[in-house]
Amino acid sequence: MPEYREIPGAVTAPRGFKAAAVHCGIKQQAEDLALIVSDCPAAAAATVTTNTFRAAPTFVTQEAVSNGIAQVIVANSGCANAATGEQGMSDARTMARLAAEATGVAAEDVIVCSTGIIGRRLPMDKVAEGIKQAAQRLTYEGGEAAARGIMTTDTAPKLVAVEFEVAGVTCRLGGICKGAGMICPQMATMLCFLTTDAAIEAPLLRSALLAAVEHSFNCITVDGDMSTNDTVAILANAQAGNRPLAAADDEGYFAFRQALDFVTQTLAKKIAADGEGCSKFIEIVVTGAQSWEQARMVGRAVANYNLFKTAIYGGDFNWGRIAAALGSSKVPVDPAAVTIRLQGITAWQGRPVELDMKECRSALEGRQVSVEIDLGLGQATARVWTCDLTPDYVHSNAAYEVPESQGD
Amino acid sequence: MPEYREIPGAVTAPRGFKAAAVHCGIKQQAEDLALIVSDCPAAAAATVTTNTFRAAPTFVTQEAVSNGIAQVIVANSGCANAATGEQGMSDARTMARLAAEATGVAAEDVIVCSTGIIGRRLPMDKVAEGIKQAAQRLTYEGGEAAARGIMTTDTAPKLVAVEFEVAGVTCRLGGICKGAGMICPQMATMLCFLTTDAAIEAPLLRSALLAAVEHSFNCITVDGDMSTNDTVAILANAQAGNRPLAAADDEGYFAFRQALDFVTQTLAKKIAADGEGCSKFIEIVVTGAQSWEQARMVGRAVANYNLFKTAIYGGDFNWGRIAAALGSSKVPVDPAAVTIRLQGITAWQGRPVELDMKECRSALEGRQVSVEIDLGLGQATARVWTCDLTPDYVHSNAAYEVPESQGD
Repeated sequence: MPEYREIPGAVTAPRGFKAAAVHCGIKQQAEDLALIVSDCPAAAAATVTTNTFRAAPTFVTQEAVSNGIAQVIVANSGCANAATGEQGMSDARTMARLAAEATGVAAEDVIVCSTGIIGRRLPMDKVAEGIKQAAQRLTYEGGEAAARGIMTTDTAPKLVAVEFEVAGVTCRLGGICKGAGMICPQMATMLCFLTTDAAIEAPLLRSALLAAVEHSFNCITVDGDMSTNDTVAILANAQAGNRPLAAADDEGYFAFRQALDFVTQTLAKKIAADGEGCSKFIEIVVTGAQSWEQARMVGRAVANYNLFKTAIYGGDFNWGRIAAALGSSKVPVDPAAVTIRLQGITAWQGRPVELDMKECRSALEGRQVSVEIDLGLGQATARVWTCDLTPDYVHSNAAYEVPESQGD
Repeated sequence: MPEYREIPGAVTAPRGFKAAAVHCGIKQQAEDLALIVSDCPAAAAATVTTNTFRAAPTFVTQEAVSNGIAQVIVANSGCANAATGEQGMSDARTMARLAAEATGVAAEDVIVCSTGIIGRRLPMDKVAEGIKQAAQRLTYEGGEAAARGIMTTDTAPKLVAVEFEVAGVTCRLGGICKGAGMICPQMATMLCFLTTDAAIEAPLLRSALLAAVEHSFNCITVDGDMSTNDTVAILANAQAGNRPLAAADDEGYFAFRQALDFVTQTLAKKIAADGEGCSKFIEIVVTGAQSWEQARMVGRAVANYNLFKTAIYGGDFNWGRIAAALGSSKVPVDPAAVTIRLQGITAWQGRPVELDMKECRSALEGRQVSVEIDLGLGQATARVWTCDLTPDYVHSNAAYEVPESQGD
């Protein structure tokens, strides 16, 4: 039974966090700069993309959390500040300094994130003005505004918050993110900001974050394209008043992990369900693997198989493409031991199963699609989330003519 | 200087090979069964997909060439005979036996290939009738008919033939293939059949084939989706009368390898240029790598990056997506040492290069796209070929409504 319960709000649901978002003109319209500020220095952890062409702000973010402490997150959309060379590094550091000055913290306690078009310089005059304005608008209710401020081609802000107990003390954890992938659609990227008022020491916070990300954001894909800017960051400001969590066997750490897993998986699924051009959300459950990693590898192979994704878009009960996709992963499966189910209908069980084609045709009419694969190799299970591949995905990623306010 | 010259024809351009194709009703219309027959037993080699869900005929083909000798190739389109279990294995063996009976050879000398929808049984009565008819229509001019007989969603038959000298003796090498990928579009698959009248011993033929495939078909991608049926097979029937090639330093082996590389790379590029929905052919040249494998890894990462392919479709000079794609490969590049050119225009040279946006916009108007990436790590070079990702790709792979005569 989960030891957390969902509550309204987002990154300002935990105590002692303010947030705001403004439109400063990086994009033609819509909010394009967000600030999240803890009332006090917070334990901090972050994980960023492994892309070798990763953006300047991902380096600044790593530096900011290297001592386990941070207090401010500043993020812009509309420009990724990636593939921008030395100038980009200097601009990212300037963003940190400006946010520090505007909020009265040290520059080394500022996490910096950018998302948008790759290879263009940030308009630093607009960014400077935006940071100043956002700092003036910070409120304890600004979490949802911040969620809107980091949107690019997302169709809705993505946010969630929960409440849980740590050794009898009520704590809160909230998060926001933007999509639409682990993996960049429209030159955009995946960003996720988490806050909690639980007291937890930085090394434990970091290991909890890495584990949660592995089972959430690293289990989604929209188009298989790794981004230059992906960042997940968490601030834990201890305002709840619990005795600080320091070790994995401390009372309440399990509840914290459960809450963190729920929040990150909820946000990850929101990203997959809102992938660019997406018309259907797909959950792939791989069971019977020798390890979780092996199960995820098979899930990812299916989730990134374009022909499977186009079939789902077309409502085509084409289970053969699932077989081809899982066969293309590096996992040495024996088809005779494999079971494949699509929408609960068993299509392959070591051999082809006779299908009722009428049932198959109607099976894919809804917006939710379930794929179950039993590898017959062991006991491990993994879940991977993705969406279908549609003509809209191609159209919205093909054109110069995409309005800057949406596309970046 | 190449030691071969292109000649008309295909798999019947070499001496002592007959071919034919017929419509036997696996598809609603269009030819769906092809036969290629050598006048005498030929040295033979084949390489098939590594997909763990690979089709029954790929097992039969491996058995057929295991002793280095084969004489007949029988192939059908419209049904892949993949994910068909024991029944599929039995059907593939029956296909070999029927082709052997119709052509008067031993069943173990028949290479069997299928392409089309996965998970459905072959209509064996139609296949039997088709094989009988095709055997009656075999001619020494049937190479192009065979190329048409293996087409699925290809827009044109793919064929090529060359002539070259082995120690003063003129030999010929011809090939046909169907696409549209290393990698399956429309549940189809890549098949390539090569014939030569050069005399060459089977072990050397096999090593020449593996090397040629590595630099041709294993350097193309349409959608990143590995197929269940990919097969490349070659028959060398020694009808040219040259002294048999047996070792890599034999006189004339270099000319044979050059001819084989030209034929396989020509066919591979035809597949990439005719990828499903393709509107542009893309060549990616990666230089400055530590090894050819490393160079190809980077080329493949770019060639499979959906966002790069959609940008090319849109004529969008979005070089940042090339940076993001190469950064996502597992190769540890240093951006400061990298150069990226799109259509000959340098966009990144260790840092961003100032671009003339007018020039960039018009650069992508043609049907051919050139990407050059210098990794700055070493001296090795690789070439990878692909095509753009278009709405037509999604449409033609989404629907039940695809006419059976095209889609399989």
